[in-house]
Amino acid sequence: TKDEECANGDGEALDALLADLANVNNSRERASKLFQWLVNPVPAKSFFSETWEKKPILVQRKNSDYYKGLFSTAEFDRMLRKEDVQYGVNLDVTSYTNGKRKTHNPAGRALPFTVWDFYENGCSLRLLNPQAFSSTVWNVLSILQEYFGSMAGANVYLTPPGTQGFAPHYDDIEAFVVQLEGKKHWRVYNPRSEDEVLPVLSSANFNQIDIGKPILEVVLEAGDLLYFPRGFIHQGDCLPDAHSLHVTISSFQKNSWGDLLQKVVPVALEIAMEEDVEFRKGLPLDYLTYMGVQNSDKADPRRTQFLSQIQRLMKKLATYSPVDAAVDQKARDFFHDCLPPMLTPEELSSSVQGASARWEHGQVVDVGSQITAQTRVRVLRAGCARLCSDGEAVNLYYTTENSRVYHKEELKSFEVKAEHTDAIEFLIHSYPKFLTVGSFPCDSTEDKVALAELLFERGIIHTAEPL
Amino acid sequence: TKDEECANGDGEALDALLADLANVNNSRERASKLFQWLVNPVPAKSFFSETWEKKPILVQRKNSDYYKGLFSTAEFDRMLRKEDVQYGVNLDVTSYTNGKRKTHNPAGRALPFTVWDFYENGCSLRLLNPQAFSSTVWNVLSILQEYFGSMAGANVYLTPPGTQGFAPHYDDIEAFVVQLEGKKHWRVYNPRSEDEVLPVLSSANFNQIDIGKPILEVVLEAGDLLYFPRGFIHQGDCLPDAHSLHVTISSFQKNSWGDLLQKVVPVALEIAMEEDVEFRKGLPLDYLTYMGVQNSDKADPRRTQFLSQIQRLMKKLATYSPVDAAVDQKARDFFHDCLPPMLTPEELSSSVQGASARWEHGQVVDVGSQITAQTRVRVLRAGCARLCSDGEAVNLYYTTENSRVYHKEELKSFEVKAEHTDAIEFLIHSYPKFLTVGSFPCDSTEDKVALAELLFERGIIHTAEPL
Amino acid sequence: TKDEECANGDGEALDALLADLANVNNSRERASKLFQWLVNPVPAKSFFSETWEKKPILVQRKNSDYYKGLFSTAEFDRMLRKEDVQYGVNLDVTSYTNGKRKTHNPAGRALPFTVWDFYENGCSLRLLNPQAFSSTVWNVLSILQEYFGSMAGANVYLTPPGTQGFAPHYDDIEAFVVQLEGKKHWRVYNPRSEDEVLPVLSSANFNQIDIGKPILEVVLEAGDLLYFPRGFIHQGDCLPDAHSLHVTISSFQKNSWGDLLQKVVPVALEIAMEEDVEFRKGLPLDYLTYMGVQNSDKADPRRTQFLSQIQRLMKKLATYSPVDAAVDQKARDFFHDCLPPMLTPEELSSSVQGASARWEHGQVVDVGSQITAQTRVRVLRAGCARLCSDGEAVNLYYTTENSRVYHKEELKSFEVKAEHTDAIEFLIHSYPKFLTVGSFPCDSTEDKVALAELLFERGIIHTAEPL
Amino acid sequence: TKDEECANGDGEALDALLADLANVNNSRERASKLFQWLVNPVPAKSFFSETWEKKPILVQRKNSDYYKGLFSTAEFDRMLRKEDVQYGVNLDVTSYTNGKRKTHNPAGRALPFTVWDFYENGCSLRLLNPQAFSSTVWNVLSILQEYFGSMAGANVYLTPPGTQGFAPHYDDIEAFVVQLEGKKHWRVYNPRSEDEVLPVLSSANFNQIDIGKPILEVVLEAGDLLYFPRGFIHQGDCLPDAHSLHVTISSFQKNSWGDLLQKVVPVALEIAMEEDVEFRKGLPLDYLTYMGVQNSDKADPRRTQFLSQIQRLMKKLATYSPVDAAVDQKARDFFHDCLPPMLTPEELSSSVQGASARWEHGQVVDVGSQITAQTRVRVLRAGCARLCSDGEAVNLYYTTENSRVYHKEELKSFEVKAEHTDAIEFLIHSYPKFLTVGSFPCDSTEDKVALAELLFERGIIHTAEPL
Repeated sequence: TKDEECANGDGEALDALLADLANVNNSRERASKLFQWLVNPVPAKSFFSETWEKKPILVQRKNSDYYKGLFSTAEFDRMLRKEDVQYGVNLDVTSYTNGKRKTHNPAGRALPFTVWDFYENGCSLRLLNPQAFSSTVWNVLSILQEYFGSMAGANVYLTPPGTQGFAPHYDDIEAFVVQLEGKKHWRVYNPRSEDEVLPVLSSANFNQIDIGKPILEVVLEAGDLLYFPRGFIHQGDCLPDAHSLHVTISSFQKNSWGDLLQKVVPVALEIAMEEDVEFRKGLPLDYLTYMGVQNSDKADPRRTQFLSQIQRLMKKLATYSPVDAAVDQKARDFFHDCLPPMLTPEELSSSVQGASARWEHGQVVDVGSQITAQTRVRVLRAGCARLCSDGEAVNLYYTTENSRVYHKEELKSFEVKAEHTDAIEFLIHSYPKFLTVGSFPCDSTEDKVALAELLFERGIIHTAEPL
Repeated sequence: TKDEECANGDGEALDALLADLANVNNSRERASKLFQWLVNPVPAKSFFSETWEKKPILVQRKNSDYYKGLFSTAEFDRMLRKEDVQYGVNLDVTSYTNGKRKTHNPAGRALPFTVWDFYENGCSLRLLNPQAFSSTVWNVLSILQEYFGSMAGANVYLTPPGTQGFAPHYDDIEAFVVQLEGKKHWRVYNPRSEDEVLPVLSSANFNQIDIGKPILEVVLEAGDLLYFPRGFIHQGDCLPDAHSLHVTISSFQKNSWGDLLQKVVPVALEIAMEEDVEFRKGLPLDYLTYMGVQNSDKADPRRTQFLSQIQRLMKKLATYSPVDAAVDQKARDFFHDCLPPMLTPEELSSSVQGASARWEHGQVVDVGSQITAQTRVRVLRAGCARLCSDGEAVNLYYTTENSRVYHKEELKSFEVKAEHTDAIEFLIHSYPKFLTVGSFPCDSTEDKVALAELLFERGIIHTAEPL
Repeated sequence: TKDEECANGDGEALDALLADLANVNNSRERASKLFQWLVNPVPAKSFFSETWEKKPILVQRKNSDYYKGLFSTAEFDRMLRKEDVQYGVNLDVTSYTNGKRKTHNPAGRALPFTVWDFYENGCSLRLLNPQAFSSTVWNVLSILQEYFGSMAGANVYLTPPGTQGFAPHYDDIEAFVVQLEGKKHWRVYNPRSEDEVLPVLSSANFNQIDIGKPILEVVLEAGDLLYFPRGFIHQGDCLPDAHSLHVTISSFQKNSWGDLLQKVVPVALEIAMEEDVEFRKGLPLDYLTYMGVQNSDKADPRRTQFLSQIQRLMKKLATYSPVDAAVDQKARDFFHDCLPPMLTPEELSSSVQGASARWEHGQVVDVGSQITAQTRVRVLRAGCARLCSDGEAVNLYYTTENSRVYHKEELKSFEVKAEHTDAIEFLIHSYPKFLTVGSFPCDSTEDKVALAELLFERGIIHTAEPL
Repeated sequence: TKDEECANGDGEALDALLADLANVNNSRERASKLFQWLVNPVPAKSFFSETWEKKPILVQRKNSDYYKGLFSTAEFDRMLRKEDVQYGVNLDVTSYTNGKRKTHNPAGRALPFTVWDFYENGCSLRLLNPQAFSSTVWNVLSILQEYFGSMAGANVYLTPPGTQGFAPHYDDIEAFVVQLEGKKHWRVYNPRSEDEVLPVLSSANFNQIDIGKPILEVVLEAGDLLYFPRGFIHQGDCLPDAHSLHVTISSFQKNSWGDLLQKVVPVALEIAMEEDVEFRKGLPLDYLTYMGVQNSDKADPRRTQFLSQIQRLMKKLATYSPVDAAVDQKARDFFHDCLPPMLTPEELSSSVQGASARWEHGQVVDVGSQITAQTRVRVLRAGCARLCSDGEAVNLYYTTENSRVYHKEELKSFEVKAEHTDAIEFLIHSYPKFLTVGSFPCDSTEDKVALAELLFERGIIHTAEPL
């Protein structure tokens, strides 16, 4: 079956795969299949239990076409011609020679005339957000972000033969290095210490003598995949006989338990202070005389007592954790980071974006919403909309009006009327099933249709049949 | 003995008391004695075990001179004439009639001509920081702040006969109402609910019908004291036959365990994320699908597991609490809030403020620091300086150059050289003993004298004998 | 000849005209021809002597194809589908019914589904910067701006049959109303007073009773032109039987002598104060006692003397006017407002934008600048670059890297080395002639080529033959 | 007579003089007499016709007591003890040795202990605003500012024997160097060029070789005066046998015709653009092609025409000059700069500042305004209040609530009701005569008294007899 082909991934060209995925009825399932294709033949399940966040893994496929269609240097050349690619914003020109890392960005637009001159002089080119220029990259990342529950990003790297563009360093993201053209010699090193395992921030550039011996050394060829977790130092250079083009797909930046706790903890304390008088009681009159760095060497029983009271309150704090509210804060950040969904032809023809209203022969045709109680609808993607409560109000956050350029648009949301909350929750939880508008738990048909129109106009829902 | 007299407080006028206190060798002891005088005959110990933060207490003394010398309306009148008292900044004109609370502040300087006109028309006058104008109030508060380990403030209230200036409300501070002249009818009410016990913020004005029945109703007369904890609603009005002048001494604003935890908790999380890889591990891929308000009613075992992981990490967080560093942050805030010490004549003559260098007969005399290794010194007050470490650096914070006007000066500090840290710690912990400069644990005599000169010039230390 | 055809404009379709203009060797000549086409058959010369800034003029052509190709509703429909048109930013939805003017913009992207619904409900659509979406509008405006020496802008208005979208008002720009489709009933009124002749700011919306009787009333049909100066009140509405599409081309916003004087006058005073001690002499000691509004009715001879001294100095001020520097300030503002030039195919193939460097068959080809002393070059357009001195430095300002979106890019410039100033001036003044790089008045061939490369990379010059 | 004594100034001590001046009925006359005392025996009239803004002048009196009472080092010493003098804010510690000028200010409060140590080590002390600390300096400056119609400031300089505290330089103010104690060797030099005659800004420090030969060299002794205009370079140093204390009284900073024109010119252009269509007409289409620095060498007849049109408009601009409004803008700046008047005992007892309302024996006495229609009033000083119109509104600006610290208070003013404008103008112009409140040109007695009360409460008027 198609699905099996997808699962083992053999000989599946990316365009065909994406066309197949467009027929998968559930966006979460679609995302799983795409991720499975990325790491094939390693099963996703074992990847996550044994490799993810733990160690590098190499997939060599001897199939240079495996990732074909995702991106190419020819497409990059076309892009430079037709799009407004700006040095420093969209494209970095870099070199790493004799242990020195340099950036060569001039000001202004990157035109082939200057870009290829840099390349010919041994500079590497890093395209910072290919998703804004390539529909395929956009499509792939927008599907994967739903799988990761965290922003999926990408950089493309083009390196001339016999050169290296970057110093050894580690990043703050999980990295999937997808080799697209040519080949590249990679060396991967263990984190230097426990403190640099799964680090919060990327490193500065290292000197070769600081990083020890590689735990993995390999020549990646077109169709191969190299994954390594954040904190693993890496460097890649081109052999004299071939250029290299790869895209690094990344995720899980600032997506740790600690990052979530940063949302939980201040609010937990606020709640504890509101609800628990123990947190509002005054400090001992004399605590400044035995606490503080100046007194930290004192063996004062009052210190012990003070410290244990702090311990007790910190533990009690856990009971006031507003976990769901904090998750929603995190979700809002994620929604702002999200790429908008790229619609399949079917989705397009059944949503506001592809609606047939138009100007034809000097007048408008097919105009006016035809949503009725009989119209069957569902949210466009499992994860494209989310109900959150912000104090008194309930808001619906959604990704369908986001931009392909990171944070170019504000986070999109609107306040949900009390009488619409249940209907929206019902709608979200019913995915991937279509519901008739008439089945919405609202008071009147008018109300149901008004809600459906509102959601349709924002691109949040689409219909089972084209309107 | 003097001390006994002070302890029982009989017949002790404030000026005499303060003169006696000037001879107490240790500023902490001095502070205890002054506080004891404030609450006499209630022993401070039982006050703190039974009353403080728990309930109101009334001390009726039948001695209208008990607090005499602290402040008076005559002094207020002199102040208006000689000082730049500004409406809205230093003085509020208020009224509460027929259940309506109003403020009548005009712009500009408050002169007797307009102030007494307001008073004669039934307005109350609230002087906001008498410590900036009255040396006695400054002296008393600067001593008490060392006792409380928290800023001590004061407001003075002058109310015409037969009027009330303020609506019933509660405050966010511990209040000591000290009746100075005339008398005032007070009503005190319990907090309205558990949530308003020891509240974080002051209340708005209440209507009479919202506050129930008073738990204490009394006419306070000159020499009497009324204490009530934050959260206790109160209102006071003048009887037709007498005006009232009282000062409310306050402390413990934002000085609770929770306020300290606000310093502890964000840093604890930062440390945990640096030191403990568990906090840096990624969130589950799918957590957004079962967590969040939208999913809070779901009975999903993954929710239970997620919540218990948060509980586990929150409890673990306690083990990373930087308590001493957080206390120092709190201490810095307190140091910024502090009044500068008011020096006794002996302190003055032995410190930089009273040093004898001067212009006389057309030339300077007694100039040039005469600090030597034999000079004996100590810090001016037990709590006037504090060593704190801020990351790499160690800084000495001090209150001796603060202003009598709240936050008019920046928080004062300087970075301490590594070779001076031990000497300063030694100096602070040796108080109230005097040390010879030669005994400082520094490398050279030059170094010891240089440090002593530095501390002397900032007013942090004084000498055993006038220089 | 081509030129004659262009001049009388008969039967010339816009695309053909623009193709012809691409062959005109001098951008200023090209601009004149395009403007002549706009106002045909009125000769430009008589237009400027008799009509411009003086009175409305109507050109009825009975040729609905005259402006064809400039813009169309069909193109607008395509735009909504393919481009990110945002309500409020790029598109306004308006109505004017029963004397009330309303704006109906929702938030977010304007999609055909909602746009056409508004239209069908009688709303007018105003597209704010068609030049960002339509290459033809961009091309036309970028040519006209060189003619006007002032920014040329455009708005497109689509109005449903039987409706009016805007209240009567006047604008602060010279307006060329170009009827593209359907027809529109226009009424134009004289400025209401001398003060509103050639006004500095646009008016608010007027009531019908405030504007008197029209001086011109006409039904504009496709191919017709209506011009009116700033200050002339106007309103247009659709007849019941036809929609209307027109584009209003505008220029001369804040481009008056007074606007230039705002640059001249403060600097003139600065110079006068530096160079002329009369301006630095002190005011009379007692001038505040007889001058000022409070003394304006006094018949004091000192007033007369004071006023005549001011008159004398004001007149003297004229002699310090830095006119050329002020014109350059104005030019810089204009350069920032400018659209970038739209290149003809010949210009493209001979400039950095169309240079043949590219990726082909896995490697770069045609790379590396081949500019030599023999290369013949000229500036891309007569007015695309300008040398200005800013204090000490000389800077070259240029428009070739501007964006089609107003002020999206900063004003572009770079500092010119002293040894390059003459060469750049020579280059600018030689236009439209091509010069060999070797003929630049620089010291060395290296220098000449370096300058040429710099100018070529910024798109300021192009070569006589493709490189 | 008193007046004659004052005029010839013989043997008049400052305190006696100021007491005498307190009896002068008109503040302008008072100011004239004080200025005459300053420059005695030079008649003020000849001083302003021959010396002011033209050249230095020296007055040697052989009377070391002439300026006695203005300020002294003993007073400075007292000030350091009792007032919050801050290094860098109120006091600068400087030195000029071997051609190097240094500032030695530590942070924080200036106490005698450190100040006299600096002095003993050869540093000069500059007290920046003695008027904030010395009532006599305040009094003298507040009187002189009315004479100058421009802020009068002062710095005090104390210099140890055998040292120099400042490098040669010139200032941007008219300087009256008043020698108070000891003696100082001064050298004064001509401005270095025409451009530095009456300069707008002070100079940097000069090297000795840059300033040529002095035109005046003298040893100033106590009681002597040295005046020099802005732009004259000067330096002073102490002889080995005596310290020096002098105060420099200054005025006329930014008080030139050009400074006034900076208020006139932008508004004149605004008015011209509103009222004169010539200023609103568009620039020539092609002006950018022949104007601007790039074209400044072209001999183009259009340049001549363009330049002469600018000349014509600049001259026409003079006819739109809003001189009185601009003078009022300047007056407002001056009012903000002004010291508040220092009241004489008579003024005090008849104004709000000295009104007898007070607290006495437990109650208020003498309260309530007793202004009636019979009360006779006048403005406190000829120049303490000024009516200005700001667009629609008329405001009264006044100096009586200013602070002795420069700009510590906002500029004081209030909007004047239409029905009060005439009365205030009448009141201002009647000075120094007293008017009965009943004679105010207002509609009702109520209105007249209300206005008088308002002005009395702001300290703007005082009464003929104490209330």
